[in-house]
Amino acid sequence: MFSVTIRDHMMIAHSLRGEVFGPAQRLHGATYVVDATFRRASLDADGIVVDIGRASEVLHELLGGLGYRNLDDEPDLAGSNTTTEVLARVIADRLADRARDGALGDGARELDGLAVTLRESHVAWASYERAL
Amino acid sequence: MFSVTIRDHMMIAHSLRGEVFGPAQRLHGATYVVDATFRRASLDADGIVVDIGRASEVLHELLGGLGYRNLDDEPDLAGSNTTTEVLARVIADRLADRARDGALGDGARELDGLAVTLRESHVAWASYERAL
Amino acid sequence: MFSVTIRDHMMIAHSLRGEVFGPAQRLHGATYVVDATFRRASLDADGIVVDIGRASEVLHELLGGLGYRNLDDEPDLAGSNTTTEVLARVIADRLADRARDGALGDGARELDGLAVTLRESHVAWASYERAL
Amino acid sequence: MFSVTIRDHMMIAHSLRGEVFGPAQRLHGATYVVDATFRRASLDADGIVVDIGRASEVLHELLGGLGYRNLDDEPDLAGSNTTTEVLARVIADRLADRARDGALGDGARELDGLAVTLRESHVAWASYERAL
Amino acid sequence: MFSVTIRDHMMIAHSLRGEVFGPAQRLHGATYVVDATFRRASLDADGIVVDIGRASEVLHELLGGLGYRNLDDEPDLAGSNTTTEVLARVIADRLADRARDGALGDGARELDGLAVTLRESHVAWASYERAL
Amino acid sequence: MFSVTIRDHMMIAHSLRGEVFGPAQRLHGATYVVDATFRRASLDADGIVVDIGRASEVLHELLGGLGYRNLDDEPDLAGSNTTTEVLARVIADRLADRARDGALGDGARELDGLAVTLRESHVAWASYERAL
Repeated sequence: MFSVTIRDHMMIAHSLRGEVFGPAQRLHGATYVVDATFRRASLDADGIVVDIGRASEVLHELLGGLGYRNLDDEPDLAGSNTTTEVLARVIADRLADRARDGALGDGARELDGLAVTLRESHVAWASYERAL
Repeated sequence: MFSVTIRDHMMIAHSLRGEVFGPAQRLHGATYVVDATFRRASLDADGIVVDIGRASEVLHELLGGLGYRNLDDEPDLAGSNTTTEVLARVIADRLADRARDGALGDGARELDGLAVTLRESHVAWASYERAL
Repeated sequence: MFSVTIRDHMMIAHSLRGEVFGPAQRLHGATYVVDATFRRASLDADGIVVDIGRASEVLHELLGGLGYRNLDDEPDLAGSNTTTEVLARVIADRLADRARDGALGDGARELDGLAVTLRESHVAWASYERAL
Repeated sequence: MFSVTIRDHMMIAHSLRGEVFGPAQRLHGATYVVDATFRRASLDADGIVVDIGRASEVLHELLGGLGYRNLDDEPDLAGSNTTTEVLARVIADRLADRARDGALGDGARELDGLAVTLRESHVAWASYERAL
Repeated sequence: MFSVTIRDHMMIAHSLRGEVFGPAQRLHGATYVVDATFRRASLDADGIVVDIGRASEVLHELLGGLGYRNLDDEPDLAGSNTTTEVLARVIADRLADRARDGALGDGARELDGLAVTLRESHVAWASYERAL
Repeated sequence: MFSVTIRDHMMIAHSLRGEVFGPAQRLHGATYVVDATFRRASLDADGIVVDIGRASEVLHELLGGLGYRNLDDEPDLAGSNTTTEVLARVIADRLADRARDGALGDGARELDGLAVTLRESHVAWASYERAL
């Protein structure tokens, strides 16, 4: 199995609902360093998993739709806590949609899976991985 | 599949038995930067894999029972080499026990697996992963 | 010259005033991984620059007074943009106050200087250094 | 499942064929920081996955056969693009050969799999993993 | 003293002349992860050292003029070995020129100094720092 | 001013004397990731600060004289606590001796200074810098 990972980041504000979050129930924020991993059993004719230039642009654009915002005010995310885990799935699912609609190139339709890791500090991170 | 990872560390002395270890047969030591990963197929009602506050406390307490010690003198570890691989399993198994006894919260009983990585330097690390 | 650095972090929300900040004029947030460096020309009788245990506690407490908050609402920070540079100085100045009032131990009164670096992402960070 | 990872690096020149590569079609180069991971279901009698000293030597020697070269001129690699993905497989396959021929020690014949990750920058890396 | 650092990278081919370079006398290549640091005694009216958006664009454009090339063929660099040290100075001097010609904004004319670090692997890097 | 840094590591056991060290008064150990920085105002005829190959060998040999040992038993270090700060100075002073005796090459006699940083964990490190 092959994989390629690219890294970008976003900076957001949010608050979390539930006693388990302690002081993180207050409005605060985070930098998420985002690693998007694309998996594929075999390489395409160019010898790659995915066009890394396109994948970087798509990820950057997608993070631009979340970053520099207060996620508490985003209608798309209403009704769920925007925990690191939840945001990893949101980004992975949106990347999967873009892969299917051809934004990552025709070859990306052969991808077997993808994973998204959000690093919220030097001591904590969360991931979500899924099939394609 | 979701996962959450937290990082802590411990500093220990030990020696390793066996010619394969060369100079590491002498009494020496290591800082292990410890990454504990908790895996779960679906999130709980709060949108998390595990209560990261509790998990950090449990990991810190557990490492406090190993750190700042000469592991050659620990009865619990007698009879086996305390290699990085072995210590990764010891920590993973102790975390699994704590998850089962409720120390990580009721939700942690839904965890599917966990993994522990011990980084012993900038050029070497070892992991152990297991089901729960 | 000797130095010792310790690392901790804080997660905050804020907005920045001024066209130069582009989308960061909106309410957003950041994780700042904070490196606090203590400098001293010679070591104390124990062979250290500063009591690293005390320094870590003081830094953690100090970051606890900023973290998990919307800095736009903090009276202490009103009237200035809470840029990474400004926050590095705020933290350095507060650490300097604690060093002078003895919170880092008597030896810390011999410190020659300190520096604070705030890493806001994998591609950007800011520092402020000052004498003591 | 246990794993052990060791890190080394190589510095190479090459060019890539195909419009998808844009400016990387020109002769350029890369430092690849190489992580080789060895997996095994159970540890050997010494409590290890593999003799890390031998594994490091074998990896270093193997990278020495690729590094400080223009890969466009290497007969072994002719006919395929030397993308990060392809090079990860080349290195993994050569390591697998060395494990089978005993260069990593008798115990290494019990390895269940291996993975090779090539980090080409702080924002991109590729991996290949295979059974043994 | 304040500083702000931004990170980018470039991938180049080159060879080095001189016995001291051993196998690096052959045509090979490198990824340089480039950290550009801007220093200033006091902040501007916005509370910043430099417009980080502009600085990132200028650095990226400047690295685009070196990257994805065989530096042995670049007339600008003829006559000197393109060691990591030399390239750090080349980039620092070009950034200094851009600061002086206003490309980093009017405020950047108040910069006191800058430093450029090129990381060529996980175990080696070089820096050049200069006044402005 | 130019600088070049190389990274290596050592693994040691030791104990620290003094109440300030708390549990670190017990026999324990550490991995020190060691960064040695060589500074020089101008480059030599080859365009380098120091022969990085020789410097790496000298550093590795020097760390080999400390690593895989219980530092409490080393006569050379008797009478002082082997804190991270003290060890940084020991290594810097030994490197300075080697630079002066020609082990780093004739050019290394032109070095202006050096610094040694010992990273003891992901959250703490110490440095010592000196003139040459």
